Parts: sequence; C-alpha cells; structure tokens
Amino acid sequence: MSNTKLEEMLGDLKEGKLEVADVMQEIIELPFKDLGDTKLDTHREYRKGYPEVIFCEGKSNEQVLEIFQQAKNNASYMMGTRASQELYEFLKGTLDDITYYEKARILFRGNAREIKNDKIIAVVSGGTSDMAVAEEAAVTSQIMGCNVERIYDVGVTGLHRLLAHLQEIRNASVVVVVAGMEGALASVVGGLVNTPVICVPTSVGYGSHMDGLVPLLAMLNSCAPGSAVQNIDNGFGAGYMASLIVNQ
Amino acid sequence: MSNTKLEEMLGDLKEGKLEVADVMQEIIELPFKDLGDTKLDTHREYRKGYPEVIFCEGKSNEQVLEIFQQAKNNASYMMGTRASQELYEFLKGTLDDITYYEKARILFRGNAREIKNDKIIAVVSGGTSDMAVAEEAAVTSQIMGCNVERIYDVGVTGLHRLLAHLQEIRNASVVVVVAGMEGALASVVGGLVNTPVICVPTSVGYGSHMDGLVPLLAMLNSCAPGSAVQNIDNGFGAGYMASLIVNQ
Amino acid sequence: MSNTKLEEMLGDLKEGKLEVADVMQEIIELPFKDLGDTKLDTHREYRKGYPEVIFCEGKSNEQVLEIFQQAKNNASYMMGTRASQELYEFLKGTLDDITYYEKARILFRGNAREIKNDKIIAVVSGGTSDMAVAEEAAVTSQIMGCNVERIYDVGVTGLHRLLAHLQEIRNASVVVVVAGMEGALASVVGGLVNTPVICVPTSVGYGSHMDGLVPLLAMLNSCAPGSAVQNIDNGFGAGYMASLIVNQ
Amino acid sequence: MSNTKLEEMLGDLKEGKLEVADVMQEIIELPFKDLGDTKLDTHREYRKGYPEVIFCEGKSNEQVLEIFQQAKNNASYMMGTRASQELYEFLKGTLDDITYYEKARILFRGNAREIKNDKIIAVVSGGTSDMAVAEEAAVTSQIMGCNVERIYDVGVTGLHRLLAHLQEIRNASVVVVVAGMEGALASVVGGLVNTPVICVPTSVGYGSHMDGLVPLLAMLNSCAPGSAVQNIDNGFGAGYMASLIVNQ
Amino acid sequence: MSNTKLEEMLGDLKEGKLEVADVMQEIIELPFKDLGDTKLDTHREYRKGYPEVIFCEGKSNEQVLEIFQQAKNNASYMMGTRASQELYEFLKGTLDDITYYEKARILFRGNAREIKNDKIIAVVSGGTSDMAVAEEAAVTSQIMGCNVERIYDVGVTGLHRLLAHLQEIRNASVVVVVAGMEGALASVVGGLVNTPVICVPTSVGYGSHMDGLVPLLAMLNSCAPGSAVQNIDNGFGAGYMASLIVNQ
Amino acid sequence: MSNTKLEEMLGDLKEGKLEVADVMQEIIELPFKDLGDTKLDTHREYRKGYPEVIFCEGKSNEQVLEIFQQAKNNASYMMGTRASQELYEFLKGTLDDITYYEKARILFRGNAREIKNDKIIAVVSGGTSDMAVAEEAAVTSQIMGCNVERIYDVGVTGLHRLLAHLQEIRNASVVVVVAGMEGALASVVGGLVNTPVICVPTSVGYGSHMDGLVPLLAMLNSCAPGSAVQNIDNGFGAGYMASLIVNQ
Amino acid sequence: MSNTKLEEMLGDLKEGKLEVADVMQEIIELPFKDLGDTKLDTHREYRKGYPEVIFCEGKSNEQVLEIFQQAKNNASYMMGTRASQELYEFLKGTLDDITYYEKARILFRGNAREIKNDKIIAVVSGGTSDMAVAEEAAVTSQIMGCNVERIYDVGVTGLHRLLAHLQEIRNASVVVVVAGMEGALASVVGGLVNTPVICVPTSVGYGSHMDGLVPLLAMLNSCAPGSAVQNIDNGFGAGYMASLIVNQ
Amino acid sequence: MSNTKLEEMLGDLKEGKLEVADVMQEIIELPFKDLGDTKLDTHREYRKGYPEVIFCEGKSNEQVLEIFQQAKNNASYMMGTRASQELYEFLKGTLDDITYYEKARILFRGNAREIKNDKIIAVVSGGTSDMAVAEEAAVTSQIMGCNVERIYDVGVTGLHRLLAHLQEIRNASVVVVVAGMEGALASVVGGLVNTPVICVPTSVGYGSHMDGLVPLLAMLNSCAPGSAVQNIDNGFGAGYMASLIVNQ
Repeated sequence: MSNTKLEEMLGDLKEGKLEVADVMQEIIELPFKDLGDTKLDTHREYRKGYPEVIFCEGKSNEQVLEIFQQAKNNASYMMGTRASQELYEFLKGTLDDITYYEKARILFRGNAREIKNDKIIAVVSGGTSDMAVAEEAAVTSQIMGCNVERIYDVGVTGLHRLLAHLQEIRNASVVVVVAGMEGALASVVGGLVNTPVICVPTSVGYGSHMDGLVPLLAMLNSCAPGSAVQNIDNGFGAGYMASLIVNQ
Repeated sequence: MSNTKLEEMLGDLKEGKLEVADVMQEIIELPFKDLGDTKLDTHREYRKGYPEVIFCEGKSNEQVLEIFQQAKNNASYMMGTRASQELYEFLKGTLDDITYYEKARILFRGNAREIKNDKIIAVVSGGTSDMAVAEEAAVTSQIMGCNVERIYDVGVTGLHRLLAHLQEIRNASVVVVVAGMEGALASVVGGLVNTPVICVPTSVGYGSHMDGLVPLLAMLNSCAPGSAVQNIDNGFGAGYMASLIVNQ
Repeated sequence: MSNTKLEEMLGDLKEGKLEVADVMQEIIELPFKDLGDTKLDTHREYRKGYPEVIFCEGKSNEQVLEIFQQAKNNASYMMGTRASQELYEFLKGTLDDITYYEKARILFRGNAREIKNDKIIAVVSGGTSDMAVAEEAAVTSQIMGCNVERIYDVGVTGLHRLLAHLQEIRNASVVVVVAGMEGALASVVGGLVNTPVICVPTSVGYGSHMDGLVPLLAMLNSCAPGSAVQNIDNGFGAGYMASLIVNQ
Repeated sequence: MSNTKLEEMLGDLKEGKLEVADVMQEIIELPFKDLGDTKLDTHREYRKGYPEVIFCEGKSNEQVLEIFQQAKNNASYMMGTRASQELYEFLKGTLDDITYYEKARILFRGNAREIKNDKIIAVVSGGTSDMAVAEEAAVTSQIMGCNVERIYDVGVTGLHRLLAHLQEIRNASVVVVVAGMEGALASVVGGLVNTPVICVPTSVGYGSHMDGLVPLLAMLNSCAPGSAVQNIDNGFGAGYMASLIVNQ
Repeated sequence: MSNTKLEEMLGDLKEGKLEVADVMQEIIELPFKDLGDTKLDTHREYRKGYPEVIFCEGKSNEQVLEIFQQAKNNASYMMGTRASQELYEFLKGTLDDITYYEKARILFRGNAREIKNDKIIAVVSGGTSDMAVAEEAAVTSQIMGCNVERIYDVGVTGLHRLLAHLQEIRNASVVVVVAGMEGALASVVGGLVNTPVICVPTSVGYGSHMDGLVPLLAMLNSCAPGSAVQNIDNGFGAGYMASLIVNQ
Repeated sequence: MSNTKLEEMLGDLKEGKLEVADVMQEIIELPFKDLGDTKLDTHREYRKGYPEVIFCEGKSNEQVLEIFQQAKNNASYMMGTRASQELYEFLKGTLDDITYYEKARILFRGNAREIKNDKIIAVVSGGTSDMAVAEEAAVTSQIMGCNVERIYDVGVTGLHRLLAHLQEIRNASVVVVVAGMEGALASVVGGLVNTPVICVPTSVGYGSHMDGLVPLLAMLNSCAPGSAVQNIDNGFGAGYMASLIVNQ
Repeated sequence: MSNTKLEEMLGDLKEGKLEVADVMQEIIELPFKDLGDTKLDTHREYRKGYPEVIFCEGKSNEQVLEIFQQAKNNASYMMGTRASQELYEFLKGTLDDITYYEKARILFRGNAREIKNDKIIAVVSGGTSDMAVAEEAAVTSQIMGCNVERIYDVGVTGLHRLLAHLQEIRNASVVVVVAGMEGALASVVGGLVNTPVICVPTSVGYGSHMDGLVPLLAMLNSCAPGSAVQNIDNGFGAGYMASLIVNQ
Repeated sequence: MSNTKLEEMLGDLKEGKLEVADVMQEIIELPFKDLGDTKLDTHREYRKGYPEVIFCEGKSNEQVLEIFQQAKNNASYMMGTRASQELYEFLKGTLDDITYYEKARILFRGNAREIKNDKIIAVVSGGTSDMAVAEEAAVTSQIMGCNVERIYDVGVTGLHRLLAHLQEIRNASVVVVVAGMEGALASVVGGLVNTPVICVPTSVGYGSHMDGLVPLLAMLNSCAPGSAVQNIDNGFGAGYMASLIVNQ
C-alpha cells in the first residue's frame, strides 16, 4: 500500500467517507502486509534496476517458460542463469524475443539497464576452462548497466600474460577474478591493485581439487587484503556484487 | 501499539481531534515498530514461561553477573548453562539467592515453573561420562515445569541394563537420549518406543571420534523413525525441546 | 506368549496336568521369545497407528510389489517413500487400489488414520525446489491423521513473504521447516515461534553446498532453542516425528 | 622352486649328475627368485587353502577371462568378487565349469576347501539392502571351508528380531556384522557376545551418510571391546579374516 | 534368577507350596530381569575370564579409586588403561596391591589369567613413539593369559629390520601391527603372513596427519586381505581381540 | 625509473654523452627493477592512503615494536590487528603516542585518514560474542576515513531487533555482517538491502561448529545475491574492503 | 625483444637513424612486454625442450584439434594428456602424423627430444589398475628425452616381487612410484633407495578411499625422507619433474 | 652369504663333505637372511653420506641425549630437527661439541658433508613467519653439502619483491618454495622457472586455514608443472630431497 493511498484513506475517514472499522481492518493487516508492500515496493524498485534472476539448472523447460511468461509484466527484463542451449531452443519457440548468451549460459529477455557511469569492471580469468563462469559474471554486469573489460587466460603460470594487462586491470573500479585449480590468481591480482577484488573459485581441476573447494579455501586465505569470495562457480554473484559497487 | 490505541487514534481523527499528518506519521512507523512491539510482547509472554538462558562459557564472571542482575526485573527466573563451580562461587558473593546444579553445570535464580501435567520426560544416557550433558537436559526440563525420569548408564554394550528399564522409558511422553562414542543408544531406544526421541550426541570419545561428530552423524543416519537430533553436547537444547512438547 | 496363556500353563502345572520339565522348557525360552512376542505385539499395535514405511529408492519394482502384497494382511495401510512415477505405473498394473502422491513421491495403499484432534502441523519451505521434501513431510503427517498447513516458498531473502504468514505458523502446534542452500530459514522461524521446530535440510544447492551438509550443520548450530534436526532430505522423518508430537 | 625340487637338485649334485656351476646358477638367482619361489611356495601352499581373489569391478570381461584361464594351473580354485551377472554370462561362454553366486556377486571355479572343523561363522546383517555384502562374506567363508550361519535383517530398530537369534549368534566362534545406516548393530552385537566380531560398514544410506563413512566411523568408535573393522562394503575381507580365525 | 531357583519354584507350585499368582509375579518380571540375570551371569562368567576395563583418562583420581574398590569383590582382577603415573601414585596410597605398567600406562590389581595354550600373539610396531600403544596391546594380552612376542621399531623405511624378524612374526597365531605416520607397516606385514592381522593406527605424526586419521584410513584401504582395524591409539582393543582369537 | 629519466638518458645517448653499453645495462635491468620501482611507487602511494597492517598474533612483543619503529618514516600511520592488552602495555613503554582500541584489539599510531564523503558503512553483528570481530571491522574502516554505524546484537532469533534498525542499515552504502553460530544473519540482511554486503563468519559457536567453518559455508551458500565472504574472524578484511568500496 | 635487437636499436639511436621518441615508445612498453618477451623467449626455449602439454579431458574434439593445429609452428612437438581413443580417431582424420599412446592416453605429434644422458627414470607401480597413470609418467619422460625403466605390478602385498627388482630400481637416478589403495608402496620404495622419489597417488580403490585422498595423504605422511608428492592421478606431473631432474 | 661361500659349500656337497640336508638348511634360510645382510650394507653406505635424522619433538631430553651419544660411532654426523632452545641447553651440558641452528631449530654434531659441486638450491619463502621452516630446509641442505641461496619474504602480494630476485631464483638447480596462507607463491615461482620446484606448505595462517591443509592442497593443485609437494612444515624433507637432486 503506497503512502498516497494511505493518506487518501485517512482523509476519507476524517471526511466521514469511511468508518473507523474499515480503516482499522486495513491497518491491522498493515504490519506484515505493509512490510510486505514496502518490501515489495523496494523489491519492485530494486527489480526495475536489477530484476530477479532464475537459476535454470534443475528446473524443467516448462517451469522456466512459465516463470519467464509470468515475469513479463512485473519486471523490465528477465534473466536466467545456467541455461542450456537445449533450454534456449525450447523457449524461443514460444518467446521470440529471447536472447541466449551461449558462453555465459545466460538467457535474457527485455531491456538491459543503460550504462550509468564510465567506471569499469575488469573480469580476469585464469584458464580457458574458466570462461563460462567469467562470462556469467561479465554478462550479468553488462545487463545491469556496467562497462566490462574481459581479460581472460592470464593464469599465474604465465605471469607475463597477466602483467601485460596490468594497466587495464588497474584502470577498473572493481576486479572480478575467476580461477580454478589452486586459485592463486586471486592473490596475485589482489597484490597488484588497490580496488575491491571479488574472487570466484571454479570447479575446474582434478585429483584432490574437490570440485572447487581447494581454490575456494585458498582465496579465503589469501594474504592480499581488499578481496572477498563467492561460492564455487558463482559468476552471477560476482557480476551482481561488482555491479552494485560501481553503480552506487 | 495496541489495537485499542490505534482505534482510539482513528476515532480522534474521525472526530477531528487529530490531523491526517499526525496519524500518518504514527502509521508510517508502524510496520517495523509494531512488529517489534508485537514480537516483544510475544517475547515477554514467552519469557514468562521459559525465560532467556545464558550460555556462560566464554563470558567473564563480571559479564554473567551483570546479565543476572539486569534480568531480575524482566524475567521470573534466570538460568545459565555451562557454568563452572568457580563462576558460581563468584556470583554467590553478590547474588545470595542463586542456586548451582553442579552436575548439570546450571546456575538458577528465581522461581521455576510449576508442573503442568503428569507427562514424563525420560532422560536416558549411555555412560557415566555423558552425565553432565544428560543432567543439563534433565535440570532444564525440571526448571521448565516437567517431570523427569533419569535412566543413566544404560549403554548398548550392556543391553540388559537398558531392557531392565524399558517400561519406565516407554511410560515417558518424550525420550531424550544422550550418548557419546558411536551413539548407537539412540537407534536402540528409537526402535523400542513409539514416542518422540530427541538425540544428543556428546563429545565423549577418543581417536577418530572427532569431538562428537561421529555420534552426531550416526544419530542423523539412525534407521529408527521418530527421532531428531541436537548439536553436540547440547543437553539444554534437548531439555528445552522436550519441555515444549510435553507442555503443549 | 500372553499372560493368560502363562497363567493357564502354571494352573495346569499346579493341577498336575503339566510336568515341571515342560514348563521349565517354555519359560527358559521366555526371555527372548517373550520379549519378541511383547515387542511384536507392541509393533503390531504400533503399526495399526503408523504402519511400516518402505524406502523405495534402490529397490526393484518387483521387490516393492512383493512387500506391498505381503503387507496387505499385516497392516491397515502401506506407504512407500522416494517412489518414482515409473514405479507407480508398474505397481498399479497389479494393485489397482494404490495411490501416488506425485509431488511427495509417496505411494499409499489402504486406509489413512482419521484425524485425532484439531492441532496443526505447519510445513514451511524455503524455495520451490524444496517442495518434494516438504510434500513428503506433509503427506506423511496427513496419512498419520494430522492437519497440515503448507506454507511454501517463504525463504529468508524475501522476509516479507515469511512474515505475511507468521500468524498461520504461530497457530501450529509443531512447525516443520524444510530448507536447502544455507538453511537460514530454520533459525528465523525458530526465533519467531514458541512451538517445537523440526528442521529438514535439503540437498538443494550448488558449489560448496556438499549435497546438504551445509544446511544440516547450519541448522544444528542454530541459535534458536526449541528445534531439532533430521537427516538431509528426510521429509518423511520430519512428518513422522511431528505426527508423534501432535498425536500424543 | 619347491623344496622337493631343490632337494632333488642337490641330490643330483651329490651324485654327480649335476655340476657345481649349474647348481650355483640356480641358487645365485635364488635370493630374490627364491624369495619369490619360497614366497610363491608359501603362496602356493597358502593359495591351496585360500587362492588369490580377483576384484572384478573395473576390469574388462576379457581381462577377467584371461586371469581365470591363467590361474587354472596355479591354483586349486579361482574366485572373483564384485562380478556382475553380465560378466558371468560372458565367462560361461568359454569357461563352462564356472559358478556364479548371484546375491554375493562372486564367481567361482574349481574346488572349494573342505570343512576343517565344526566351528561356525555367524554372518549377521541389518537390513535387506546389506545382503549383497553379507553374502559376499558368507560365500567367501564357505569357499574357504567354514560353516556359516546366516542371520539377516535383524537391525537394531527391531531389537526383538536380533534377540530371537541370540543363541545362534553366541554359538558362533566369530561373528561378522554387516550394517549400513548408522551401523549400531555392530555395537549391540558386540555387547552380547564374547567372541571376536568383525564389522563391515556398508554404503547403504542417504543424506549425510557419506557413502558409508558414517557407519565406518561409528563402528571404529564402538564401545564394545572385541571387535575390529573392515573397509566399507568389504564383505570379502570380513569373510576372509573370519575364516583365518576359525581355521587356525 | 538361576535355572535351579526357577525349577525349585515350579516344583513348589506343583507341590502346592506356592500359588499361581506368586509364581506369575516372579515370571512376569522375568523377561527382562531374567535377561538381565542371564546377561549378568554371562557377564560374570565373561568377567571371570576378562574382567571389565576402566578407561582412566578423563576420570578423577577419586572416581578411579572408587571403581577399583567396588570391583574388588565382583572381579578376579581389575585393569585400568590410559592411566598416568600420577594416578598410580595416588591409588597406591590406598590400594597397596596395585601394579602399574608404566610404558603401557596400565593399572592392574588382582590375578592375571593363566596361559591357556602355546599360541603366540606378535605385537609389531613401527617407531619408538608407537611403543605406548604397542605396550597397551601387549600387556592387555598378557593379563588375558596369552604369550606375547614384542617386535618393535621395525618400520617400513628400514625393511631389513622387519624382514630379519619375519620368522618370529610368522610363528605367531595373530599379529597386532601398531603404526603411526602413514601406517604402511600394516600392509607390508599383511602381505607377509597368513594369520589374522589386527591393525592399530596411532596418533604419532605431524602436518597433515590429522591425529591418526591418515594411518587409520590407509589401514582400512590396505590391499592385504586378512586384516581388520581398531580405532586410533586403541592398543587395548587390539590386545583384547587378539586374546579372544588365540584363547578360543 | 621515471619516463623523464629514461628520455634524458636516451637523449644523452643520441647526443653521444652515454655509450650504448651503459644504456644497455640500465635497460636490461629495467623489466623487473622498473616493475619493482613502479610497483614500489604504487605501493607507496597506496600506503599513504591505507598503510600496511601488522597481524600481531604469533609475533613477539619485540618483533612488533621493531616493525612499528621502522614503519614510522615510511607510513603516515601504523596499525596492528589481533593485539593483546599485554602487547599494548609493552609497546607504550617505548612508543608513547600509540593508541589501543581494546574491543577491536587494534593498535594504532599516527594519523588516521580524514573522512572523504558522507557514505556510511553499517557494521551489523549477531551476538555480543561477535563484538571483537565487528569492532575490528568498524575501527579499520574508521582509520581508513569512513563513517561507521554500529548495529550490534541483532541476531535472527530476535528478528524484531534487526527490523527495528532496518532503516539505518538501508541507509548505509555497504553493510558488513558479522555472525557466528549458523551465520543466518547474513542471509536475512542480504535479503533486506540492495547494497553490497560483506559477510564475516566468526569462530563463536560450539559442538559441530568447527571453529567457524559452519557459518563460513552457510554464508557462501546464502541465497541472497549481492554479498561476498571473508575468512573466519577476519573483521579487518571486511573493514578494509568496505572502505575501498565507499572511498572509490 | 632480444638483447641483440635492443642493442641494434640503441646503436641506431646513437647513430641518428632513430629518434628518441621512437625508442622511448619501444622501451616504455618494455617493462611488461619485455618481461613478456623475455618470458616468452624463456618459454620458447623451454618449449623447445619440453613444449606445452594439453589436458584434453573436458575439451571438445574441435578445441583439441585447433590447439594442435595452432601449435604446429610454435613448438617442435605437441603432446596431449587424458586423451580418449575416440578423440584420437577424430584427430587422425585431419592430422595424419599424430601418434596415440593408448595405455598412457597420450597424444603426440612432432619430434620427441633426443636422449641426453644415460640416467634412468624407474617408474614403479603397485597394481595393474595403476598402469594408465604409470604409463602417463613413463611416456612423458620418454618424450622429454629420458631413459625409462618400467617396473609394474609390484605392490607391497607381494613384497618378493618388489625385492626381485630392487637392483633395477636402485640403478635409477629418480624413481616415480605410482600407487592406489593405501599407497604404502611409496614408503617401502622410499626406504630402499637413496635417490629422489616422486610419488603419485591414484584414484584406484573403493570404500573409504575417497578417490585417492587416502594414498595422497599417506604418501605425504610417509616416514621415508627423500620423496615428494604429486596430485592424484597426475602421472604427467611426475614424469615431467623426473625429467627435469635427470636432464639438468 | 657370499657367492664364494656358497660355491665352497656346494663343492663340499659334491665331494661328499656335506650332506644334502645340511645344505638344504642353509639355502632354505637364505632368502631373507641374505637380503637382510645386503640391505644392511646398503644402509651403512647410505648413512655415511646422509646420516639418520632425529625428529626431537615429542622426545624427552634424555632420549635425545642417548640417541646422540649412541650415534657417535655409527655416523659421521648427527642431526636433530624440531629441537627447542631448551633441549639444546640441556644437551650442551654433556655434549660440548654440539651446534644449535636456532632459526632452523636444528641440532648438529659432527662433520657436515663437503660441497660437491657449484649447483645452488634456492630456498624461497613467503612471509617472515615461514622462516623457521625455510631455515630448516636451508640448513639441512647445507649440512648435506649443498650451496644454498636464501630468498625470504617475497610473498605474492608484493610481486615486485619476488620479481626483483628472479635471476637468483632462475640460477638455482632446484627451488624450494616455503609458503603458508594460501600457498600461491608455489604456483607463481613454478611458472617462472624451468627447474624442479619442491613445495613446502606451512601451518602459518588462521580462520579456515586448517593448520596448513589449505596451502598443501593448493600446492598439489598448482597449474605449474615441474613441482612436487612435502607434508606441512616439513622443511627438512624439502632440504633433503633438494640435496639428493643436486648431489646426484
């Protein structure tokens, strides 16, 4: 319930158009509904900027279709992560205005945010196998209206490749570092920049890698201050947080 | 803000004693303040039955003293868990009406709840080393107004000891099972009764026991339906939940 | 061996119809056989209320069919959990009176318990992906003769949704909380109600989620007293324990 | 090289049928070859009683066939564990004298040991799902010439079933306990008998069961002395060790 | 209740000295009490051979003293493990007939079992740091009436030391292998003998040793059949089981 | 080496004032020395804003003293974390201008940064035991020139307390959430705000808490987007990153 | 940029053939590009000896083909690990000069290094199931120009097999030990030789083997000095390091 | 038994001076006794180069003294690791020729090996807290007759410090990398050199560092080929292996 509507209702009461009992009923339901409403408002406002995002993995094609259709009127755009090519093929039969970012595995429908400022998010990744996660971060940030600089395949075992891009990385306002294996890239980048670094460990590795637990823990124990860590393979989360920072 | 007060205010508005702006202001702050109030009321009501409990471990003697003193007027009684003999000695210098349940390591001050009904909580433990945790459960339940039947030292390696007490255990409305080592007692008791069983793994063990993780996981994987599990050594939690069940 | 039978036999002995040796033989075998009988009686009685439940996962279609057929005469009803649609299709060829709760993945045959009282079990779940586990809890409780209130998709990231249902949750005698991801819903609900809360972590999550170990451990470490925890995805166990509590 | 053969060779030397150089050559290669031979003898002798066993899982049909064919002359019998029905079908095309113990997943070819004494190995298992592992233990022991008493489906949640078989279990010289879930059966049996107990945790379980780590650790932490533990699902290892004990 | 007593009572009933009601009362309490009695008898019998053992660690001096005093009349001897020198000093003030095996940290009072046969238990250990655990196994077996052959400090990194003692090890009927670090000694010994091997991992190690979890898991995964594993540092358990095997 | 200096040197070469060999020598050492220099400059610049921070735990009093003395000329201020009261007492004997933030366990010497803008960092904590970590974050941010709003003791089990402060939390540009136990506060706050949230799990807990691993993993698996996680108890890291964000 | 090229450029500057600005431009880009170049040179030089290696698992057939085609001109040879037979079939359609080492799962194209010296790398493996990893090590070393001695199937449970090959193992300059199960072979070999030992745990095992974590940890805790450990199944890494050692 | 002796004995047999039975007896005992002798010789030779090393931690002062005294005649020198200052003070009372490397915590007595060649071992460490482990590696290598170059405090967060020493590191024949926290230094160094790298994770860290498990696992998962890993804090093991490599 908007403030305008509440004010109107109280005015009506004062003017005798409404009875105390009617207004009581409305207001008694207010604490939570209003909280709900306020929250909903916030949400709606918030969604206008960055609408809800669907995690497609584990949902049926039909479920995703229904969510995309329902969201049409409530959100300026709709985005789905971890979407397969096959899901996209299914959806575009019905939704002809849907876009698929293949490398990022992201579905998109609607109008992306316009770019707010000239700040840059640098997305830095270790190996080519980390690219899907890096792209998820990059595309998320672009949809949320940010400039993104991609610097891929600059793992620490070829340090010269990373250093050759040092200036571009330092020009960014936020750096997203995506790395699997032992995740050392996060520490090295963290030591070279003085901007916030958001680390995304990936499940790329083998042997005692434990599906990403090793780089996750390594990044949390990094000796470089100024960084924080996302869940394994959570490129979306990194892109989302980076966007919140540069769009403040 | 009570409904009466709100109704009155709206009446005043209708009668012209208050302006829309004044009422607006009050109502705008309602969602959370009221939630807070309601919640606080609930809490107060709730606390009358079962007041807050202080986890004494890791707090200084002075901190615990201050909390006990402050709580005096807000709670009908005050209870502290994981309290050392030394803490009790310190407190009783100032608080002459404080009681110490030594085996349970529980401090108590005020008036325990009166017994509501003749339902019984059976507290069953495996070995003598589990007694501190079992007593924490038992004393907690007694303070919360429940009948408690203690059946200690009936571990599964001497099954006859447990079976000799089977009738008493079956007479209870809820059974709390406290066991360390491999925690098998929970499964055996769970298979013998048709009442809810609350399992408390203890940190009593050695070698690959991992300070209680082994009986914790064993209890969660028990093949006996009708049981649920508390954190390691959380006798208080078990006594608390058992009391909620029998005092419904 | 019933008491009547024993009395009769002793009477026969007294009257000389039986010899000491014969009675000795019977009684010597008594400790375990009788225990067995008593236990069996208990079991039968107990099963009348809540018959045995079959965990279908990992059993062949034929094995489940055989168990359902054999149970017909020994149990007033029969229930199978973790049953696939495909298993149901197989069974209904032979058992035409079998029911399948698709969302709950539960098979049912026979007569469910009648509702004993007007107490309510609230089943609260975090996300739509937790629904299968939540439904398993809900259907289990319904079969066991309880009133169930379903409150789904009220995860903590949209707190207003949860608060909007607060009254319904507080009206329940027991609350079952089903949540994956980090399982925070259990703590929030536990802080809002003063009834027993049974927590069920689910395997819904990704990255460092470890198939449900994270919410399992989070729930065990919850700061809210009055709750206890089931194994991962064990909706049946939660529904079963909740029913034991409200049907006391 | 067997002792007989060595003795013969030395006799030939003594009798002048062989030269020192020839015998030297044979013996110079002896330390390791002989170690090998001696070891082989020991092995062969040992194998006569208990021949080598093939772990079939992860080997191709062809590989298993070749091993069975090669072993023909070096072993009085041949045994393969973790063998699928499909492997058996393949082998019996070529090896018409091969036997398949379906429940135990054991392949067998040759002559089993004769029974040495009237000692009994009791194989006790918790649930029907543990039967494959229990049968692996039982069949292994039978092939190694032991009397086996099978007592299945006597899990601790139906304690009367276990107690009804107590005498049979106590009559055994060694007890093998096979249990999944939380593995409590091992502790209960361990508390009821005064013979060695060999525990086999199984991977039967779900949720936080971690594929058998929970019963494994529970069994290692059992409070009952007189037991020792095998790796998860290692029914063969338990049957083997039990046979060594009763055949001493 | 002994069989004699029962027979007598039934005779009295038959002869009219007792009424059915009286005998009923006794027998009704029989199932568990008798179980208890029978179990107790078994226990007593069992204890005559191998009396209960006290785990002293974590018990106060006074508690241990009390247990030793109470046990005097119920057991032919009394044994305490994990006993400190300091506890021994305390006890011998009161119990002048108590013995302390310093290296094994075992307290003993009473009469050890006489040696039953000439079978030998070989206790083999890796390093000098494993000696306390090895001695706990050895002394336990000696108290239980077994011949023990100690073969210490024969770790696998000096294989010649182990091989030099091979004949002694092969002469034993059971081998107890005690090893820390990576526990490889168990596999090597297991490959060299055809008798049962009982493995005891110790907490001796550092770095990623995890207080003995590494050798524990290594021993469980040993490729040598014919062995089973005890909990970390559980020398008592190994000596106990070895004694059960040789004393059959 | 600055560009001016390089240009000058090349000019001198062109003009014959320098020989090729001399310039070669300088340039050959350039790649790393220059990188070093550039890096050093960056570092110095960087340190002017936010000087190096000493992790005092595990360092001797003398070592910390020496570092503080050496840093005097190279840094506008010096800060030490995890400093004990006792270390402070030692240092202030020599360094009379040193300050000790007792609750935050932070040592400080020099001039804190001036506040750059009116953005606010909200530091929200669950329980009073989390205060040391929360204060470490808050004081770090204040030293780095940020406005800090402290909102402590608003754990999720008393949700009304948190909601009562919702507006203050929403007013902040960055929220630092500090919580132990199960860490649910991070998810709840993350769902209520649309600013970046930096989560700090603490080692406050018991039982299966594993010294903070439980809230760490729970926070990483939070369902609320827009957050990232620090290592356990790393309040400094959170305050540092929050400051980088608001001071951009 | 090579030193010669730089010297030439400076000479040109001195001689007036180049302007300061031109040289400036080149040198300004030097710190990182040169580092890059130097690194690239090193790399190129290094690659001549041991070219880059492609980890094929998880890459599409097309991706591997492209990498092999692109590498043609930059590397004297190209090697791919973890390559399936199916990938090889695909590649040889286009690349007719490609070789496939089936047991080692290695693809190879180009010219292997010539053998530098007569040092030997012994590759020792435990069981036949470890052969793929052992072959990966052996073939890698051969391609890198080393003599390799394969000693397979000499696991510790048949110690005589290992000892029979002791002299060959001692003749090697480096020993690579490949073992699954409990990895004890590494300790035994480490105790028998005085050359560096490189240990490779394999994922061969079952039950509590945790896909190779058990032998990995066992090898790290080996009591034999002079060894170091590779990641699970990393035969390539072992062959690579062994080659670096013998080719120094 | 030497070949000459065997030949003689066979000659005697041929000539009738010995009986077949006597020769049989000798030969039957040959395999292991001879192996033992051979092994012992090898050991003695081996020990001349690099004598046994005592792990002092966990041994009493008296035990270490005794070992040092006994070793005097069997080894050209004696070395003890993890030795405290206090142990050294104790020993030098009796052993006046003992040396203590305080930073390395190493005791030494006797004559170190002479330097064999001009190869260099570079010991590179991350932070000052890693110095004890780094020194343990360095001193071990020096005692074993190697040139050591120490490059300390060059952690990856200050990459310029590491790069400034790149040439020295590249000049070494083997690099030992010692690092705690997340261990990223190993990957960075591994990417910059083409010599074998031996990685030593240290227990320096906090929070989720798990006493060194994080850098241990990170180093094992490093993307840089040519490295292998030691147990946590095992500086001795790294120095030992590095010495074996350069002294070949």
